[in-house]
Amino acid sequence: MPRYDAPVRDMQFVLHDLLSLQSYSNLPGFADASPDLIDQILEEAGKFAKEVLHPLNMIGDEQGCKRASDGSVKTPDGFADAYAQMVDNGWSLLGVDPEIGGQGLPYTLNTAFNEMTSSANMAFGMYPGLTRGAFEAIMVGGSEEQKQIYGPKMATGEWAGTMNLTEPHCGTDLGLLKTKAAPQPDGSYKITGQKIWISGGEQDLTENIIHLVLAKIEGAPDSIKGVSLFVVPKYIVNEDGSLGERNACSCGGLEEKMGIHGNATCVMNYDGATGWLIGEENKGMRTMFVMMNEARLGVGLQGLAQAEIAYQNAADFARDRLQGRSLTGAKNPDGPADPIIVHPDVRRMLMDSRAFIEGARAFLYWTALHGDLQEKSPDDSMRQKAKDYMALMTPVLKAFLTDRGLKACNDALQLHGGSGFTKEWGLEQFVRDVRIALIYEGTNGVQALDLVGRKLSANGGRAIFSFFAEMDDFLAAADGMSDMAEFAEPLSAAKAQLQDATTWLMQNGMSDFNNAGASSTDYLHLFGLTALAYMWAWSAKVALEKKAGGSDDPYYDDKLIVARYYMERLLPDAASHLAKLKTGASTMMALTADRF
Amino acid sequence: MPRYDAPVRDMQFVLHDLLSLQSYSNLPGFADASPDLIDQILEEAGKFAKEVLHPLNMIGDEQGCKRASDGSVKTPDGFADAYAQMVDNGWSLLGVDPEIGGQGLPYTLNTAFNEMTSSANMAFGMYPGLTRGAFEAIMVGGSEEQKQIYGPKMATGEWAGTMNLTEPHCGTDLGLLKTKAAPQPDGSYKITGQKIWISGGEQDLTENIIHLVLAKIEGAPDSIKGVSLFVVPKYIVNEDGSLGERNACSCGGLEEKMGIHGNATCVMNYDGATGWLIGEENKGMRTMFVMMNEARLGVGLQGLAQAEIAYQNAADFARDRLQGRSLTGAKNPDGPADPIIVHPDVRRMLMDSRAFIEGARAFLYWTALHGDLQEKSPDDSMRQKAKDYMALMTPVLKAFLTDRGLKACNDALQLHGGSGFTKEWGLEQFVRDVRIALIYEGTNGVQALDLVGRKLSANGGRAIFSFFAEMDDFLAAADGMSDMAEFAEPLSAAKAQLQDATTWLMQNGMSDFNNAGASSTDYLHLFGLTALAYMWAWSAKVALEKKAGGSDDPYYDDKLIVARYYMERLLPDAASHLAKLKTGASTMMALTADRF
Repeated sequence: MPRYDAPVRDMQFVLHDLLSLQSYSNLPGFADASPDLIDQILEEAGKFAKEVLHPLNMIGDEQGCKRASDGSVKTPDGFADAYAQMVDNGWSLLGVDPEIGGQGLPYTLNTAFNEMTSSANMAFGMYPGLTRGAFEAIMVGGSEEQKQIYGPKMATGEWAGTMNLTEPHCGTDLGLLKTKAAPQPDGSYKITGQKIWISGGEQDLTENIIHLVLAKIEGAPDSIKGVSLFVVPKYIVNEDGSLGERNACSCGGLEEKMGIHGNATCVMNYDGATGWLIGEENKGMRTMFVMMNEARLGVGLQGLAQAEIAYQNAADFARDRLQGRSLTGAKNPDGPADPIIVHPDVRRMLMDSRAFIEGARAFLYWTALHGDLQEKSPDDSMRQKAKDYMALMTPVLKAFLTDRGLKACNDALQLHGGSGFTKEWGLEQFVRDVRIALIYEGTNGVQALDLVGRKLSANGGRAIFSFFAEMDDFLAAADGMSDMAEFAEPLSAAKAQLQDATTWLMQNGMSDFNNAGASSTDYLHLFGLTALAYMWAWSAKVALEKKAGGSDDPYYDDKLIVARYYMERLLPDAASHLAKLKTGASTMMALTADRF
Repeated sequence: MPRYDAPVRDMQFVLHDLLSLQSYSNLPGFADASPDLIDQILEEAGKFAKEVLHPLNMIGDEQGCKRASDGSVKTPDGFADAYAQMVDNGWSLLGVDPEIGGQGLPYTLNTAFNEMTSSANMAFGMYPGLTRGAFEAIMVGGSEEQKQIYGPKMATGEWAGTMNLTEPHCGTDLGLLKTKAAPQPDGSYKITGQKIWISGGEQDLTENIIHLVLAKIEGAPDSIKGVSLFVVPKYIVNEDGSLGERNACSCGGLEEKMGIHGNATCVMNYDGATGWLIGEENKGMRTMFVMMNEARLGVGLQGLAQAEIAYQNAADFARDRLQGRSLTGAKNPDGPADPIIVHPDVRRMLMDSRAFIEGARAFLYWTALHGDLQEKSPDDSMRQKAKDYMALMTPVLKAFLTDRGLKACNDALQLHGGSGFTKEWGLEQFVRDVRIALIYEGTNGVQALDLVGRKLSANGGRAIFSFFAEMDDFLAAADGMSDMAEFAEPLSAAKAQLQDATTWLMQNGMSDFNNAGASSTDYLHLFGLTALAYMWAWSAKVALEKKAGGSDDPYYDDKLIVARYYMERLLPDAASHLAKLKTGASTMMALTADRF
């Protein structure tokens, strides 16, 4: 069975050394997050993930969820207990506003907890993950009354939340949805329709489930402009906060799927269920996007998290498995063979994953810090910049971290040879589980289109120009530091390639929108590679400073080696993406549909 | 449920137009293989694959194989009937020497049949696939008596064959194996030991199973130089050819695995089983390599075959699924939305797969033709060149076609969105099934090492220099054909990059073997991309000639579009592989093992 140990040391590096969370003590909640407290939380969270959640990961995969004929759903053995522990220990409250009973700690720190949860047991982590998204949507878009009814219980995790978007005939194109909302005299609505692929639509973990449902109010425009958002609780909440009657919504079936078997993927039937409008009529997408953006970062995180656990087990296997001899002479001459970690091609897979994972962690947490800043910074221009970054980076994080996360899981499986293909070793589960992360909350192709179609051009390109300027500042500061040249030069080249691609898109994407579409995925990957190059150059700078300051922690030596490896072995793909995207759409679109 | 239709038209292009099989009528068996006969066989084989094998593919995945307490194994419903039809129709005899009852048709043609079998039902196709490998090993390494006893029944498929290499503690490093062979007075041996991951080790398809088993004869060197090969039939064959006593070998368990559930992956226990030596003592690897090379081509073929069926279904889905509108205005204005094939990023996935698949098919069949030529050509130098090519191309085909085949399957799943992740649509099965192809018969990393460590340098690099010369001749012939420039120039550049990489390896791989290991996978991919560029430039040339000759078959227009796409969108990865491989081993090997 695989093991999981939270990568606390690397998380500390990112939170303390790289992002210097302690330097933001002027922000609400950050003053409380002293380095000591952060370390303590990371240790405790790591223990919870390792000892409570991870042992249930394979069980969840094997047992899956079971639906009874009454529509109730049983999660795998142990999930309910683990969930109760999570609630009792207050883990869900970490980043929640103190006004509704939360601890108000930085979202950035919460992200580290979420990474651990998702590494240890991705299927389990989705239950609180979606609840968080639904909670945010209510807190942002809901009325004061709705916030009071649902907020506190969702904040603790006592009640769960779900997102109901997809219908059998529509996923990406939500303007096509058919679920109807009929206004009632008392101000509520009767919701009728079928939703599919609803994660956690029914379960036995929480006493109530708060469904957020997209539907069209009778008479609304038959397009995306007629979509409204409703809150539909499984049990209607009485005025005193107790649970009232069972609502007319139920799980009609569970989906059989490739992975995340421990998470119940439900067909949800709404048969005149009582719901209440969230926000304005026909403006449901606006609030839903709050939820989706939160969820998209959470999905990018899953790519990183599964890569991390897969890497850990691959490293163990590479150290333990004796097979063959080193090309440069026996390294374990007294044993029957050398451990396979002596082989360069085995190292290649480990180092590829390591360089991705640590770079991705820095990128994700750095973005999460902007999530804090956009709300909490007292500085207007900082709040604006942070908001710009969140919008710009979200599709990149979602797609790049999941595409590369799948690769890392596949490499870890591959390193295990035949054992990787067997169920017994657990590696193949990581590949199956992470696979959904490339799809849900908007496929990676949709993310790429969001990036080139919306995010780049928003406010005249303010976000990306701000990112270029930030990298320029970094490079200017590194100029003349001879130790930094090997990291700064590749970053500078990658940044120039991203600028080149951006210019190409501006020139060619407007004259023919298909050029933008045809180049979107390569552009997103070029972006992701450049962002990670920035993170690695920055990490190298911090490591060099630590060493110059007298630290003899070998961790900083490792950081420099992996940074170097990133520049040598991962970043060269940037040029390939640039070359591809510049070929545009004409050949790609040349075949008629019937000739495929 | 997915569909499968054999890509007969593209197979005809490769066999007739590109390879001109009809021009080899001086070779044994080729004269019989008239274009008409080939077309007829392709049609019939396509029907068999579509109507008999493919309908069992999902059933096989769902049911898997079941082992009873007596050690017998039941394959999924329908497999035994389909297998019997395959034997009765004589499909196994297609490429077999007429001297033992075969049809003696070209191996190249047989390859097309194998592709269909493997596309339609990969798990099923492994039963005859491994039998073919075992049959070849006996025909090459066995005594006359052994050939007579086992050859004819294995040729028809009435008896199956297996390969028994792996043991729990050794896979790649077979020198470590522990299975023992004790010589008996009658010239036979008693074989004792445990083998794992034996595909088709037990099943209910054939009346006998002929196991080829690697073991060490008592007193033999305790290394790869002490490994001998034995034939161990499940039922001892009497002198009259009838089946005698049950041998002391049995299936001790079935492996639970990620995919290919329809194929029984057995733990095989040999408890003093009677076996007979094949070939010389301690030279077992020599004959086993005959089997492995055959098997490796078969595995590369699986990568192509799964990509093909995944692509077909992705193309269907892209034409059928209505979602969103084209970026350049509605293409299906009367419908609720456009089919998603209007979206460039959807096309990207289809075109990536198509450019890979057709290029890979040409590459595989071209190599298979060299398999015919190495045995059947009357020309000494041609036989030598063909043998050189088979040795050189085998690791490239195995690894490149499976790495890229997995990518194509993943892209097809991705194109299906959420449907791709559900079991119902069948896409995720292709991803799970094809995943093993990157591992078995030598992991792709082992293939890369075989390429740079053995195949490149054999006979002073004769094989690769011959390949460079062939591409040079092609480019010289294309020089001045203005239509060909857009295909010839990228090929020429890729060839130069491969030469550059080869020179780098020769200069740096010998001084530090780790440099060779560190660069092996990138080198293999650079090789594969260049080989496919050659196939595409050649295919474009043929298509241009057909059009110049008056053909108005739109197939040739498509060929040119896809060739162009290959050069624009797949080949740019070559430069990235070159840049990576030239960074060598030092950073890759810098971390100590305990720092991973």
